[in-house]
Amino acid sequence: MTALRNVVPRLEERWALRLEIEEFHVAYAQAIDAGEITRWPDFFTDDALYRVTGRDNADRGLPLGLLYCDGKKMMRDRVQATLRTTTFEPRFLRHYISNLSIDEVRAEGAIKARANYLVVQTLMEEKTELFQAGHYQDTFVRRDGRLLLRERHCVYDSLTIPNALIYPI
Amino acid sequence: MTALRNVVPRLEERWALRLEIEEFHVAYAQAIDAGEITRWPDFFTDDALYRVTGRDNADRGLPLGLLYCDGKKMMRDRVQATLRTTTFEPRFLRHYISNLSIDEVRAEGAIKARANYLVVQTLMEEKTELFQAGHYQDTFVRRDGRLLLRERHCVYDSLTIPNALIYPI
Amino acid sequence: MTALRNVVPRLEERWALRLEIEEFHVAYAQAIDAGEITRWPDFFTDDALYRVTGRDNADRGLPLGLLYCDGKKMMRDRVQATLRTTTFEPRFLRHYISNLSIDEVRAEGAIKARANYLVVQTLMEEKTELFQAGHYQDTFVRRDGRLLLRERHCVYDSLTIPNALIYPI
Repeated sequence: MTALRNVVPRLEERWALRLEIEEFHVAYAQAIDAGEITRWPDFFTDDALYRVTGRDNADRGLPLGLLYCDGKKMMRDRVQATLRTTTFEPRFLRHYISNLSIDEVRAEGAIKARANYLVVQTLMEEKTELFQAGHYQDTFVRRDGRLLLRERHCVYDSLTIPNALIYPI
Repeated sequence: MTALRNVVPRLEERWALRLEIEEFHVAYAQAIDAGEITRWPDFFTDDALYRVTGRDNADRGLPLGLLYCDGKKMMRDRVQATLRTTTFEPRFLRHYISNLSIDEVRAEGAIKARANYLVVQTLMEEKTELFQAGHYQDTFVRRDGRLLLRERHCVYDSLTIPNALIYPI
Repeated sequence: MTALRNVVPRLEERWALRLEIEEFHVAYAQAIDAGEITRWPDFFTDDALYRVTGRDNADRGLPLGLLYCDGKKMMRDRVQATLRTTTFEPRFLRHYISNLSIDEVRAEGAIKARANYLVVQTLMEEKTELFQAGHYQDTFVRRDGRLLLRERHCVYDSLTIPNALIYPI
């Protein structure tokens, strides 16, 4: 946390930033868990990169992944494709986000942060199960006073079956 | 969070409120997870409503649920009934509460908030398993300087078997 | 929280302490989850006690446990033994730490705190599973301005198979 203390020396500002990012994570998860995925692209900048990838890929620096969206337009296309897919079973998802770390605040304002996520899934009349365990590698920027994601890499530990990924993580 | 910023404009007060609610959740979970369920009604006002209900029910506005207590007296009766039930297997429960959102602070002081909960259960000599995933829909009020629940709706995603609900969530 | 309010009367100091402990937990979990267990002893004082034990043992005050290290030297030996054990399968672990409670700040500076942990494990090509659910019973002290653990009792609810505990919790 040395870097953060140097760039954001005042304790009160570090608290405020931490609280703001926590509220961002909560709002993001609420949109997806409520099934309101048309709101999902609103959490990103127009030129944002969104990726869901395995930890092996991420550790080796490979750019590919299970899901890759370069820009908000591609995210909106992805949402529309999801909404047209009426063949999947109804399910409830729930995100548990914890272990937030703010790793860097750059001079130009970009904020690098990480957090752990655990997504559990409930299919109708079935037991709740672990769907995906992993962590976010995020870059936030401020636009009109609110935080937006310029990059979100969802790096999962879990063995993930491509077809199961109906909703964004 | 617009409503909250309007009603609680000072950042410091919003932090204080958030911290107070987080500490409430932790104390509530510690009482249940320690098996000290006689302390459970102490977290509520005398006229409080407590309900455990499925997400389908909650989304359709149905008042019923798996468990329903109208007032602290009914909660105490419920606790006594639980303690007399000696036929259930010993088990450990653990609550993981995250994703707190404070959604509204009303002029008269009531606070509407949500949080995600994940309850895991360990039966003796068996593996720990997911017991219930869901979220709290809470209304807090202040009595003699401390927060109490006037309403708690535990809205679960999980397929939940009625007989398995020995303890409150 | 009465004790804490008496010993740390200023709200701002209680926030600062809480934030500092949360950041400690995050850094501790990141080291283990990244597989960098040689860094694990750095989170402890030289004379620290580290123990992983079942809830039954802890409740009855038994000192023994699944894993017991008395002092940093014993922790380093444990790490070296782990690194030499090349027979275990590769796996990913992830810690979700929540429900922090700061229970006491002693006059001489030691801080007693608890937190819930959920550790999930992913073996290669297998589904992510719950590995261990439990809570930390911690005593922190301050050395050269940063917090270190003088005691960490990892008290697990889960049925835990001794051989499965490759890494510290």
